[in-house]
Formats: sequence, structure tokens, C-alpha cells
Amino acid sequence: MAAPKKNGIQTVYFKNPPVIIAAASIVGCLEGEGPLGKTFDQVVNDTYYGEKTWEKAEQRMMLETMQKALEKAGLQVKDIDYMLAGDLLNQIITANFTARVLGIPFLGLYGACSTMYEGMALGAMLIDGGFAEKVLVGASSHYSTAERQYRFPTEMGNQRPMTAQWTVTGAGAAVLAREGSGPVITHATIGKVVDLGQGDAQNMGAAMAPAAADTITCHLQDTSRQPDYYDLIITGDLGAYGKKLTGQLVTQYGYDISDRYTDCGILIYSASQDVHAGGSGCGCSAVVTCGYLMESLRSGKYKRLLGIGTGALLSPCSVQQGETVPGIGHAVVIEMR
Amino acid sequence: MAAPKKNGIQTVYFKNPPVIIAAASIVGCLEGEGPLGKTFDQVVNDTYYGEKTWEKAEQRMMLETMQKALEKAGLQVKDIDYMLAGDLLNQIITANFTARVLGIPFLGLYGACSTMYEGMALGAMLIDGGFAEKVLVGASSHYSTAERQYRFPTEMGNQRPMTAQWTVTGAGAAVLAREGSGPVITHATIGKVVDLGQGDAQNMGAAMAPAAADTITCHLQDTSRQPDYYDLIITGDLGAYGKKLTGQLVTQYGYDISDRYTDCGILIYSASQDVHAGGSGCGCSAVVTCGYLMESLRSGKYKRLLGIGTGALLSPCSVQQGETVPGIGHAVVIEMR
Repeated sequence: MAAPKKNGIQTVYFKNPPVIIAAASIVGCLEGEGPLGKTFDQVVNDTYYGEKTWEKAEQRMMLETMQKALEKAGLQVKDIDYMLAGDLLNQIITANFTARVLGIPFLGLYGACSTMYEGMALGAMLIDGGFAEKVLVGASSHYSTAERQYRFPTEMGNQRPMTAQWTVTGAGAAVLAREGSGPVITHATIGKVVDLGQGDAQNMGAAMAPAAADTITCHLQDTSRQPDYYDLIITGDLGAYGKKLTGQLVTQYGYDISDRYTDCGILIYSASQDVHAGGSGCGCSAVVTCGYLMESLRSGKYKRLLGIGTGALLSPCSVQQGETVPGIGHAVVIEMR
Repeated sequence: MAAPKKNGIQTVYFKNPPVIIAAASIVGCLEGEGPLGKTFDQVVNDTYYGEKTWEKAEQRMMLETMQKALEKAGLQVKDIDYMLAGDLLNQIITANFTARVLGIPFLGLYGACSTMYEGMALGAMLIDGGFAEKVLVGASSHYSTAERQYRFPTEMGNQRPMTAQWTVTGAGAAVLAREGSGPVITHATIGKVVDLGQGDAQNMGAAMAPAAADTITCHLQDTSRQPDYYDLIITGDLGAYGKKLTGQLVTQYGYDISDRYTDCGILIYSASQDVHAGGSGCGCSAVVTCGYLMESLRSGKYKRLLGIGTGALLSPCSVQQGETVPGIGHAVVIEMR
């Protein structure tokens, strides 16, 4: 298969790379018990988090994650120019209601599970473009709110196919700033919506893989870099099947990323946790990036990484009307200098 | 009531104000019969627009509006760096599926009915910040897709209270460019989420009014301008009740805008069209801005205007869980030079 047809350069670089001065993550029980459990700031064992509904629990999780990120940055709400956030719930109510509490000028985003990376890319542009000093970026998902909105009430106990993924319960938030210490965002590659005709809403990894492969390939072409420039190339929530497909497509497009490529949805759970193909949801790439990846950059385990937030752009309505599932992938380069 | 408490300057200005080189709008039958009918590019009388579902009709409307805007600008898809768009449907499927066809790097937005203005503000920042030469911005809504998603199936014939508004069927799109001829965007004021506790989802104008008043006041304070700097101050879709409340709030905050303030939702329908409080929906401010306002700027009727896209940040789920309805307002200054 030929490399993706390109209209032009999709990648921008930042003259003064914005700094991720702080990041925070709060996750649910299953995520806390997983291999990355220790890299998150807080584990919440109650799926209701003391609230009356799962939706309100997700809101509390996003709010406290944002407050935690501000606290770690030593900043207050008034120091932040913009909040960029989104989630999976209809009309992104998690982000809207969090923004209501914080009172920061708010730009609502919807990129499905790519939202954290869409936010980091846009936030970096706003800072490097001269429109902000500090930006707060965040995204969240919750297993129980996503299941009942997208699929079936969990009470029904429907059987899930092995290609299905497990929506991560968790929220991630990062504070981007013009100056400070921490990893920097040097490039962003905004993705196109790609659809190779996958119509199974229970196999979203396969639906997102073509978009992920497209963005990775465009990024490498745009920057004239080889995969070995990066210590790690990591997609957001493709899971086992989507990751395999992405690797195959990128190989067909002329790049071999196999020795340094993984996926947040694979890292977050262990095989014994019975989540089938891996993690998914806005929270997946958000918490792995704000938890594990930030820790790995700060500890020196990785120096340069290419992260690709991936989103499946379906709705129950679009599936019911016979549509296939398009995907999107937004990439940012994060380096420790 | 005191003026809104502010954390800092919310308004940014553009060193090289991006130009709206073209704009297009396609509307439904009722909008075509309204007072602004002649300012739209096309009127579609079939609510299905030849498609099998209203959702697919809305997609066709957004796609053709974007293609029309490109055609009027003399541009092709490959000339556009980013597409920024959103709509009211769950998971913004209208915008996602339109982006799938166009294949332009895509940033999905959700600002409820403020989306067109969120897009214009962000698009202008991306261009003036040096990250894009040309950006395509769009938003849409459809009476029938919105009614069945947010309220009741229209087949039920539920009675609507007089405070209810009528979701505009229509799509608007604008091409923003670094250079060219046309109205320019000189400033943007990104709004905060404001909630004064209005809980009636059938009176969204009242729910959005505090946010609109907050953004207008912040904008005037930030720029040290008086209302008479503008020939027109126009909100997105507050309708009759929301417009009245906004005027009152802004007066309490110390500015008199009464002699130059109106609302897109009031202009788009005539009193005889029986739409109760006026128009609403993402399409409302999008088509009035891309149709009537662009024509008024080009003809010299207005020279400087402050437009405020307004959004009610509710979902059926948030209302069912007892939440009130927060609002948001994003403002841009459009001037003919």
C-alpha cells in the first residue's frame, strides 16, 4: 500500500517549545491495580466516587485532577489563560461542568479519545503563537458512563467480543506554560479523519488504526525523521488488535517502528485483568501520558517521544444508521531537554 | 449587580488580523422564508435533503456549505491547513463525517451553539500565530435532529412553552486567511462558563444570558472601548427573553448597549412564523454571520461589529440528573477595513 496521499505539510513546530510544567492523573480501581498503578496521583476505588451518579463521579474526577495539576504547578486558577478539555459524554458535560467550577476561559473540544492530544497540540499553539502564557489541558472517561451511553447498561451483563476494549476510568490534566522546567512540546501533527470502511463498533482499534498510521507516517515525512529519532512511539488507545494493524500499515508506508512502538491501551492493564483487547477512552491516553510518560521523561527512561492520541468518531446514532467508524489521530512530540 | 469578577485579560488582539475571504450558508425552508432569506446562498425545502435520515441531511448541508465557501474563495481542499467545526449532535457526527469527506486536518470543537464563534476565534489564533495560512470554520444544526436528540420526537406534537426557541436548520462556513480581501477579525474574547442557576431546559435564552453579558462586559473592559465603538453588537441565539436579560445585565455591569444590540435568533425569523422566542442552534449564529452579517459588512451597512456566539451547555443526561444549565459566550470583533 502506498503512503498516505498528502495535501501539504501537516506538522508544525514550536519556536519556543511550550513546557509541560505539571501533570496529574486520577484513576479508578482497575487502572490502579494495573502495571502503571504507581505512576498515577490517586486511585479511586468507588466507581461513584461518593456521588449519586457515575456522570457526577467522572466530573469530580476531572475537577480534582485539574486542581491537582494546578497545585503541582504551584498555580491558581487565575494564573491560567485558557482551559482546553473534553470527554466522551454527549455534549461533553464532564468538561463543561468542570469549567463551570474553575471559571477559566474555556475552549470545549471533541476529538473522541484523541482529545488530550488535540488539547496539548492546540494549547501549545496558543502559547507559542503568543495568545497565552499558561494553558490547562484535560480529558476524562469513565467505564460506567461510557458503557451505558455507547453500548448497553452494564447491569445487563452482555458478553463482549475479544476485540472489545475497556474504557479507562480516569482523568488526566497537564499545565502547559511558556516558561518553566519539564518536558517540552516541540511539534504537533493534526490528523485527518480516515475511514477504511471498518463498521464494527466493538472493534474500535481496527477502526482507528488507519488514522494512527496516517498521522505517524505524515509526521515522519514532514520532519524528515526516521523512527529511531524517538525512544518511544506510542498511540492512545488502539489496544492489541489496533496496534498490530497500525504497525503493519506503517511498515507498508515505508517505516519500521516495530522496535519502539506501543500503545497506552496495552500498557495500562495486564493480561490477567481480563479487559480483552486493552484500554480505551479519552482517559486512557490522558492518564498514561500525564502519569507514566511524564514520569518516564522526568526519570530519563525516555528522552524523546512521539505520542498519538487516537479517536474513533462514531456515535450510537451513526452506527444505527449504517455508518462505518472513521478514526483520527493527533500527534505531539514531547522531549526532555 | 457588580461587573463580573475577572481573573485577567480575556481578550486577545491580532497583529495581522485574519481575513474572512469567503463565507457560505445553506438553510432550511423556514429560514429561507424568514426576513434574512435572501442573504443565504441556498434554501433547501426538503427536511431530508434527499437523504434517508435527518442526520444525513444535516451532514450533506454542512459538506455542501463548506464546499461552497471554498468555491467562493477560489480554493481547493488542499489549500486549507485546518478545518475547525462542530455541531449539536452527540459526538459531533455532522462535523466528523464532513471532515471524513474533505480530508483536511481536523480539529473537532464542541461549544454548543457558540461553536461557530469558538471556531473563528481559534482559527484566527492559528493564522495570526503562524500555524496556518488558511482555515475552514463551520457549524450546523437541524431542527429535526436536535428536537429528537434533546427533547421529544417531533411526531409526538408536544406543546412548546413560549420561552422555547426553534433550532435553525442550516450550516454556515467561513474561510479565514492570512491575506486577501474581506472583513477582518481583529479581536477574540474567549468566554468562561457561567451559571446563575437557571434550570429550565425550555428557556435556554435565559440560561445563556449571564454568559453573554459576562463576555460582552469583559470585552469592553479589556479593550477600554465603549459600546459605541461598534455599529452592532449581536449575540448568537438568545432569542427574545435571553436578549432582554442580557441587555439588563450589561446595563447593571455599567454599559448601555441598548441602541445597537440585537440577536441572530431574533433576526432570522419574523413574528408571524410562530417560532416562539426565536431561533437557536449552532446553525443560528453560523448562517446569520456567514449570510446576513457578511453581506452587511461588504455592503457598508456595518463597519465594525462585536459578535458573541452563545451556547447552553446542557445534555439530556445532565438535566435528568438535576443539573442547571450553564452557558458560555465567545466573542470576535469583525471589521470591514
